[in-house]
Amino acid sequence: MRIGLDVGGTKTDAVAVDAAGDVIARVRRSTGWGADAVVQTVVDAVDAVRGEAGIAQEDVASVGIGIPGQVDATGRVVHAVNLGVDEVDLAAAVTPLLGVPVRVENDVKAAALGAYALHAAATGSMAYLNLGTGIAAGIVVAGAVWRGDRGTAGEIGHLGVDPAGPLCRCGQHGCIEAFAGGGAVAQRWGRPGLHPVADVYDAADIGDPLAMELRAGVAHGVAAAVRVLVLTADVDRVVLGGGLTNLGDRLTGDVAAELAASAEASAFMRSLRLDERVQLLPAGSPAAAVGAALVGVARDPQEVLARG
Amino acid sequence: MRIGLDVGGTKTDAVAVDAAGDVIARVRRSTGWGADAVVQTVVDAVDAVRGEAGIAQEDVASVGIGIPGQVDATGRVVHAVNLGVDEVDLAAAVTPLLGVPVRVENDVKAAALGAYALHAAATGSMAYLNLGTGIAAGIVVAGAVWRGDRGTAGEIGHLGVDPAGPLCRCGQHGCIEAFAGGGAVAQRWGRPGLHPVADVYDAADIGDPLAMELRAGVAHGVAAAVRVLVLTADVDRVVLGGGLTNLGDRLTGDVAAELAASAEASAFMRSLRLDERVQLLPAGSPAAAVGAALVGVARDPQEVLARG
Repeated sequence: MRIGLDVGGTKTDAVAVDAAGDVIARVRRSTGWGADAVVQTVVDAVDAVRGEAGIAQEDVASVGIGIPGQVDATGRVVHAVNLGVDEVDLAAAVTPLLGVPVRVENDVKAAALGAYALHAAATGSMAYLNLGTGIAAGIVVAGAVWRGDRGTAGEIGHLGVDPAGPLCRCGQHGCIEAFAGGGAVAQRWGRPGLHPVADVYDAADIGDPLAMELRAGVAHGVAAAVRVLVLTADVDRVVLGGGLTNLGDRLTGDVAAELAASAEASAFMRSLRLDERVQLLPAGSPAAAVGAALVGVARDPQEVLARG
Repeated sequence: MRIGLDVGGTKTDAVAVDAAGDVIARVRRSTGWGADAVVQTVVDAVDAVRGEAGIAQEDVASVGIGIPGQVDATGRVVHAVNLGVDEVDLAAAVTPLLGVPVRVENDVKAAALGAYALHAAATGSMAYLNLGTGIAAGIVVAGAVWRGDRGTAGEIGHLGVDPAGPLCRCGQHGCIEAFAGGGAVAQRWGRPGLHPVADVYDAADIGDPLAMELRAGVAHGVAAAVRVLVLTADVDRVVLGGGLTNLGDRLTGDVAAELAASAEASAFMRSLRLDERVQLLPAGSPAAAVGAALVGVARDPQEVLARG
């Protein structure tokens, strides 16, 4: 039995996955703020999902943790700003408390692995495009996450798509994330509200000019990200996930219209059939936690290649 | 002994490569126009390089041909417009004439393989960015060309980087190729001359406003292509090749300045050290023909992954 956790900014999703890859238990917990509280959240969530599944500690083969921020090969987490974590050696902190092997992975890469396993395993390769506060993608090839040479494969949020576009928090103008990142949209909207991006879409529906501009920018940015992933890595499928996908058809409809416009303009773009290659992660999918459970179990494409 | 040919729009470069990968002979021939003449050019070039190397037909293990246009798995070539070829089953046409196994590959993918073998084999992964009439890249991982799911990996020339940019021949606005493709630059320059892109650079040097705009666009497009390749596939190295690289330092200096500007603006971009990851294919490098000789010899990453 493997346990996987997706540690999010507000909630932590935990699953127990059996040898066949089926989810046999799932629990959710609030995520604590700061390094110590995150460590406690992990330990509590593992206990809770183990209890829910009715499995003993010795029957847990491994615990995988998907977490925002940069994660190095030893399980050290840096710059997980949404969790109040500047730096924590998460694997080292939780391993003695859990008594099982622990693997830590960036949350988008883990979610990519899970999205592939649950929703796209029939395809040759897939990109998971995470539309959250920021924008990043995880590329999965032959069932494993493509890391690239320096671990930055899929960091497409800071590619520029319009020199006259809005200033990005990274310092450049017109990045994909400056158009389509939830944080950037909320900041440019500038009005209070629990769900600022949904507010933007609602306001756009009734003709608010700023909201309409921001909403068009989201579609522009997401469509650009899809094109980058397909034209560069030629993934068979792009799965959209993350908070913005709660917008459902309003998001996908806008993105489909953007992709249709480029297919209309260009025979080359039309030949790529981008519209057929984009799908939404199903609402409530445990992909991120399932993917975390698979971290280290799936093969690393680069290692396979290096071995030959 | 393997023979490799790079069939270009004006010249065909042919090499004989020994088992150690060393080039033991090299000849160049003019390329004929149209399918029949291209077939004859291939046969003549193979004979010539075989003669130059002093090797008998039975000592030739294979002939690899890099050629512009779309190439399918059987060696059929479609839309090689620069050669006057609409469609030719090149492998089938030349195999009986040569009496050895023949492999055909798109010229950019073949050149990528050769650039990796000759100039970047110490790196984990590499992209070869071809700056010719059009713009496309070949991505090499663990010594083999990354093809992607549908054979379009690396076709980044038609990614949009500026909605207000020039109309591309593909029908979209602001594609990388519309800024930096030699064909697009020549068309926008619109003045006669054998080497229109070099003319643009010369005119920009003496302050011609259109030339300055076009030259800035080339740097903008090439820098955008480098960013796409590194942020998406995270290749260790981007090797620039193709006709535009005859511009030498004038091209690389402009591109370095563009990359420096984004590194100046953004700590994230700075952390990627893009300036250190770009290199120019040495002038006169036989990379394209050497790569053609290696086609089918090097492993296919996707096949390795599928086998596990």
